[in-house]
Amino acid sequence: MDLNSDLGEGFGAWRLGDDEAMTDVVSSANIACGFHAGDPRTLLEVCERAVSKGVVIGAQVGYRDLPGFGRRFIDYETADLVADVIYQLGALDGLARAAGDRVLYVKPHGALYNAIVHHEGQAAAVIDAVRRYDPDLPVLGLPGSVFLRLAHEAGLRVVREAFADRGYRPDGTLVPRREPGALLHDPAEVAERMLRLVTDHTLVAVDGSVIKIEADSICVHGDSPGAVEMARAVHDALAGAGVEIAAFAAAAS
Amino acid sequence: MDLNSDLGEGFGAWRLGDDEAMTDVVSSANIACGFHAGDPRTLLEVCERAVSKGVVIGAQVGYRDLPGFGRRFIDYETADLVADVIYQLGALDGLARAAGDRVLYVKPHGALYNAIVHHEGQAAAVIDAVRRYDPDLPVLGLPGSVFLRLAHEAGLRVVREAFADRGYRPDGTLVPRREPGALLHDPAEVAERMLRLVTDHTLVAVDGSVIKIEADSICVHGDSPGAVEMARAVHDALAGAGVEIAAFAAAAS
Amino acid sequence: MDLNSDLGEGFGAWRLGDDEAMTDVVSSANIACGFHAGDPRTLLEVCERAVSKGVVIGAQVGYRDLPGFGRRFIDYETADLVADVIYQLGALDGLARAAGDRVLYVKPHGALYNAIVHHEGQAAAVIDAVRRYDPDLPVLGLPGSVFLRLAHEAGLRVVREAFADRGYRPDGTLVPRREPGALLHDPAEVAERMLRLVTDHTLVAVDGSVIKIEADSICVHGDSPGAVEMARAVHDALAGAGVEIAAFAAAAS
Amino acid sequence: MDLNSDLGEGFGAWRLGDDEAMTDVVSSANIACGFHAGDPRTLLEVCERAVSKGVVIGAQVGYRDLPGFGRRFIDYETADLVADVIYQLGALDGLARAAGDRVLYVKPHGALYNAIVHHEGQAAAVIDAVRRYDPDLPVLGLPGSVFLRLAHEAGLRVVREAFADRGYRPDGTLVPRREPGALLHDPAEVAERMLRLVTDHTLVAVDGSVIKIEADSICVHGDSPGAVEMARAVHDALAGAGVEIAAFAAAAS
Repeated sequence: MDLNSDLGEGFGAWRLGDDEAMTDVVSSANIACGFHAGDPRTLLEVCERAVSKGVVIGAQVGYRDLPGFGRRFIDYETADLVADVIYQLGALDGLARAAGDRVLYVKPHGALYNAIVHHEGQAAAVIDAVRRYDPDLPVLGLPGSVFLRLAHEAGLRVVREAFADRGYRPDGTLVPRREPGALLHDPAEVAERMLRLVTDHTLVAVDGSVIKIEADSICVHGDSPGAVEMARAVHDALAGAGVEIAAFAAAAS
Repeated sequence: MDLNSDLGEGFGAWRLGDDEAMTDVVSSANIACGFHAGDPRTLLEVCERAVSKGVVIGAQVGYRDLPGFGRRFIDYETADLVADVIYQLGALDGLARAAGDRVLYVKPHGALYNAIVHHEGQAAAVIDAVRRYDPDLPVLGLPGSVFLRLAHEAGLRVVREAFADRGYRPDGTLVPRREPGALLHDPAEVAERMLRLVTDHTLVAVDGSVIKIEADSICVHGDSPGAVEMARAVHDALAGAGVEIAAFAAAAS
Repeated sequence: MDLNSDLGEGFGAWRLGDDEAMTDVVSSANIACGFHAGDPRTLLEVCERAVSKGVVIGAQVGYRDLPGFGRRFIDYETADLVADVIYQLGALDGLARAAGDRVLYVKPHGALYNAIVHHEGQAAAVIDAVRRYDPDLPVLGLPGSVFLRLAHEAGLRVVREAFADRGYRPDGTLVPRREPGALLHDPAEVAERMLRLVTDHTLVAVDGSVIKIEADSICVHGDSPGAVEMARAVHDALAGAGVEIAAFAAAAS
Repeated sequence: MDLNSDLGEGFGAWRLGDDEAMTDVVSSANIACGFHAGDPRTLLEVCERAVSKGVVIGAQVGYRDLPGFGRRFIDYETADLVADVIYQLGALDGLARAAGDRVLYVKPHGALYNAIVHHEGQAAAVIDAVRRYDPDLPVLGLPGSVFLRLAHEAGLRVVREAFADRGYRPDGTLVPRREPGALLHDPAEVAERMLRLVTDHTLVAVDGSVIKIEADSICVHGDSPGAVEMARAVHDALAGAGVEIAAFAAAAS
């Protein structure tokens, strides 16, 4: 099972999350590409650390919106979104190359991630960009999303992710952030849920029902208090049960 | 002989220069990389046009300064400049790849270009970035500059450029922009000078003396009034004299 | 009758529209505030020119989106939009003050203008910002919009504008840009329509019917080819018919 | 005696320093203006907190350089620097006004602060901007700097500041950051030094000699670990000795 987390989300003098500690825990790093976060020097350093730890580098592409951290929907023209995504992919791939590896997958960020759960035009733009840049790059996304469906139809390899610290509704979608049960805070509980997900492909939904969830990767968040502790708890629970923590994308070297 | 010009220097709603017409004249396009100019969509379109016309794509890397158009010296920390240059190289290379080609050389822009005529630290940073990104990329610069000397010592291929529309001092340096004779405006005169440069490796300096100039590429500016006319005059004078206009860097295809 | 136009929409090295010529024609200048366009030096110069010509300065506030020129809807949080608008108002007012006048009205720009025709949350945020900055500032907007209705209810003075170069539907709304008849190109026709609007409060809609339009200001666009010519035609037709061209907001001096 | 500190230096999702705690300690807040740090919403909130605590608001103007946090020298054209400073002054003043007060002084930030210790052109540009915006605004700077000398000659009120956590050389200048003794870390020692400065106008320099320092304000840094503790130690030492902590600029209300 793969563990992924968002890294490289500082900018200049500003830090966010504990990139160093998270790099010791995860198998795949969704590294920001400079449009919602990530100055080039920070990104290069995060890439170098990922390479030195054997963590696979993914490009976390987002809207061009530093003040909004990529968390605000922007109504892009298609041609702009295609080009913005290619630009970000190339930029991070350049830094990854300088660090001794390559970008090996793509995960949209924030409001773009959420938009393409439903927004066909933007989903298609992201897919078009990935295909034009490198059609062998897998894309990471939400199971059941328009994005993963269109990506699959377009011939891209799709990787489904589950969220360690989020509550699920009976229909398998996430509990919205403003509702009770949206966020889980207890590392032990989260670790146990993820172990069950991996071994049994089930989760207990917010209403107590047991639901089926197929996931190829588990997302552990990196920017909240206690993030590292929770990520370690998930990692150790899986590893302790004999589950191999390994990236879904093979390292280039 | 190679003809190079700066392209892709618009940004969003703003246009600068006539990219389309210049692509018909030059053999090498110094395409902005988004830090001093160039939104991704514009850059992708310029790359596509360059590929369709057989024009070689170079990365015109600059300071991160859209409001100053990269024309103001910025006292970068070395590690920041290295990473900013790699980021720009990767970004444009990604767009070039999506357009069917690759970045085949590097030319610093504006204040960075001027700084590394003398500034060893920034020159070394640019060279370090190019070597880490792709040590086979040639760099374009001013003959006699610290940049080209250090690049040569570092094992990079160096390409010396002459400026079609600029006056020269007897020592082979350019007449500063604020002095008389800095800028030449007559296409016929400029074309004749460039023909002499190519065939005889000489130019008439601002004081009337004849000086020796070795150049591998001629820079024709793209953003001034009459720029296209002057570029065409140079092109036609050289072609009419049997000089082959061809990029110094071989196209990938 | 007031004539307004968007000015100060360049950025750094990039120019847009003929600010100088338009300042000779209009009575009110909607000057960009730096978030969708307008570097401070350009804005200061435009303010100085407006003051020297007796043209009233208005703040054209927009989304923070230079690459998109403020033309893409952004799903702002309310508190961010309030603060972004106050920041822009203060910034332009500072430049206007340095030029010898003050900001005397507010007109939202681009996608924000369009959004608050219907979007209550964003309309309320803009109104809240104006009231907190200076409740005596009038706001310019589309007749019938949520924005003008809420602004009126909030006690702000509202100014209704008509568009010189746009076609109207029988219900008094604009023909969308992608439909036939959206844009009018003939200066003489446009001038005649505006004269009729001013003297008779009617316009011929796209289907040939005559509709009633009440407007306190006429917007002439500044960034299209022929913009200045069309603005002059409207100005001269009105002036020739004895209509006084004068700002709705009194100059401070 | 006045205590000043830099506040509002976060940006969007990124935080820097403990603005809330520092607002309880200082009498004057140097609030960022958005060009080196500070998104409008953060700035508005910091202004509101300052007003509620009776802390005077100053504008900390800087170079337009978010990625470099305003810490890199930029070789501005004079007209650009004048306009950039006016823009920042107006923007923060607008937010301060919305919060119920006004900007009451100006303190340059980072590389601009350091540049105008010696750089006459940039010092004059800042002074020109302040005078054009509001000639009654005092400016805060380094005693002996070109900036304060020119500001005084231009008729501005000048305020000299000492740095609580910095070592001094025998000539009264600061020990450069890369030399031993540049930074002081012990709150008790720093507090005692500042008490001596206030009561006796002397400091012990890095070589052990006693030097004379006249200061109207003491700068306590807000973004280092232990910053709040050190600021409180200085505050309490002065207050305990009967020194009144009060802003040099009178609040508007």
